[in-house]
Amino acid sequence: MSDAGVERDFSPAEHAELALLLEVAGTPKPGNVDRTHDFDDLRFEHFLAGSVGSRRGLQLAEDGAPVGEAFERGVEGMSQQRGGNTQFGCLLLLVPLVKAAAADELSPSGVTDVVESTTVDDAANFYRAFEHVDVAVGDPPQDADELDVRRGSEAIPTLDARGLTFYDVMELSAERDGNAREWTGGFRRTFAAAESILADEGSILDRTARAFLDLLAGEPDTLVATQHGTEVAAEVSRLAGDAQGDPEEVEKLADALVSEGINPGTTADITAAALFVALERGVAV
Amino acid sequence: MSDAGVERDFSPAEHAELALLLEVAGTPKPGNVDRTHDFDDLRFEHFLAGSVGSRRGLQLAEDGAPVGEAFERGVEGMSQQRGGNTQFGCLLLLVPLVKAAAADELSPSGVTDVVESTTVDDAANFYRAFEHVDVAVGDPPQDADELDVRRGSEAIPTLDARGLTFYDVMELSAERDGNAREWTGGFRRTFAAAESILADEGSILDRTARAFLDLLAGEPDTLVATQHGTEVAAEVSRLAGDAQGDPEEVEKLADALVSEGINPGTTADITAAALFVALERGVAV
Repeated sequence: MSDAGVERDFSPAEHAELALLLEVAGTPKPGNVDRTHDFDDLRFEHFLAGSVGSRRGLQLAEDGAPVGEAFERGVEGMSQQRGGNTQFGCLLLLVPLVKAAAADELSPSGVTDVVESTTVDDAANFYRAFEHVDVAVGDPPQDADELDVRRGSEAIPTLDARGLTFYDVMELSAERDGNAREWTGGFRRTFAAAESILADEGSILDRTARAFLDLLAGEPDTLVATQHGTEVAAEVSRLAGDAQGDPEEVEKLADALVSEGINPGTTADITAAALFVALERGVAV
Repeated sequence: MSDAGVERDFSPAEHAELALLLEVAGTPKPGNVDRTHDFDDLRFEHFLAGSVGSRRGLQLAEDGAPVGEAFERGVEGMSQQRGGNTQFGCLLLLVPLVKAAAADELSPSGVTDVVESTTVDDAANFYRAFEHVDVAVGDPPQDADELDVRRGSEAIPTLDARGLTFYDVMELSAERDGNAREWTGGFRRTFAAAESILADEGSILDRTARAFLDLLAGEPDTLVATQHGTEVAAEVSRLAGDAQGDPEEVEKLADALVSEGINPGTTADITAAALFVALERGVAV
C-alpha cells in the first residue's frame, strides 16, 4: 500500500498502545468517549492514562509472556486512573494479537493458535483481572454461577476442578459477548475492519470513526445488549446504519447516545483491535 | 493533598508519557495542537504517536542512561510519524526530570545536578537528535556557526575540541530559548507551574489549559520570538493575559493563532514538564 513504511519502526506493544489512543481519539464514535465527547465520570483523560498503563501488559505479551499474565498486568496498569474501566475489552483482544504479531503470525490462524494454546493458569489470571476494576458484564451462563467473573479469584478452584482454559471460558461467553466471539472465531471482525481501515482514505482518526460506525451498523453491540437489552442494541445498529455517510446525523446520534448513557463499548474494543492490525500492516500516522 | 495516591503506581517514564498526552489533550491552548485544534500538517494523531514513541527514551532515562542517549532515543521514537517535530522540546525538559525522579531527587537542585553532570558525549547525542526531525531553531549564537544545531553530528568534532557538555550548549542558548533557560535556571517555571496545577481545581485537562495560559501570559514564548520576532511574542503574551478567565476570548485567541500559524511551542513544552512534576507529586487523573 502506498502509505506503508513510516510506522514500521514501532514494536507490536507500541502499536497496540497507539491503537488504544487512536481509538479513543477518533470522533465521532457514537456513544463512546472520543476526542469531543465525555461521559460525566468517564472522560478522555482516563483513557489516556489507561493507554499508558496498559503498555505494561502489552509489553509482556510482546515479550512472550502467557496471555493471562499479560492481560492481568495490562488491566492492572490500565486501572491506575479514576475513571474505572476504560480498556478491559480492548486488552482482551489486543493481548493475543500482540503475542501473535511478536511471533510474526498476525493472521486469523496465527492468533487462533495463540488463544487455543491458553491454559487453566491463563483463565485464573483472567478472573484475577476483574479484581482491578469494575467491568460491566451480564449474568453468567446457565448453570455456571460458580464461573461468574464477578467472583474474581474465588472462581479459580472451579476453573482448576473443571480444567477450564482461558479459551474455554471465552467459548462459554461467545454467544452473548462480541469480544469472546472474536476469540473463538478467528478475530473475524477485527481483521475485516483492519482491511477497511487500510483501504480507506484520509487521516487515521477519520478512518477510525468510519470503521467504528461500519462495525456498529454491521452487528448489534453486545455491551449495549447486556446493559439495555437486545432490542435497544438492534435499534442502535439500525440508527448507525441510517446515519452512515451523513456527518451531521452521526454527530446527532453521538450526542443522543452519550446523553442516554448508551455505550457501544464492544464495538470500540473491536475498533481498537482493528487499528492495531492496520498499524502492523503499514497504515501510516 | 487530597487527591494524591491513585497515580503513585505509575513509574517516572509512564508519568512522562502521560504528561505528553495530557499536554496535547488540554484545550484550549492558544496556538497549539490540542484536543480541538489541528494545524494542516501537524495534527493530534501525530502527537499521540509521538508520545508513544518517546517512551523509549523516557524509559532509558528512568533506567539511568545518560541524558544525551535517552534524549536522542526519545526523539528517534517520537519521529516515527508523519507530522514532523511534535515533542522535541518536551523531551529536552522531561528526560532530565525523569532521571532526577527515578533517583528520588525531583527538585530544582536535584534536576540541576542531573543537567550539570552532562558530558561532551551527551552534547554529541543532542546534536545527533537533530538528524531525526526538522526542529525550528534560530540562528546560532554569534561566533558559534560551527555549533549550529542544524549541522547535526557534523558539529561533534567542534564539541570535542572545545570540551562542551550538553549543559554548556544549553548555556549558549539560554538567552533566546526558554527550554535552555529551564536547564540553566533550576527548571524554575516548570516547578512553579507544577505547584499551580496541584493547587488548581477541576479536571486535569482544564488545569492543563489554565497552566498553559498562565505561562504564556507570564513570559513571551521563545519559539514565537524565533519564528515571528520578539514583538509578536510579546503581543501574544499580552493577548493571553487579556483573555485569561474569559473562555470565549481564550477560544478566539486559539483560533486566531492557529490560523496565523503562530505556535507558542516552548510554552507547551514547559506545560508538559510541569504536568510531569505534578503527576509525580500526586495530582490525580
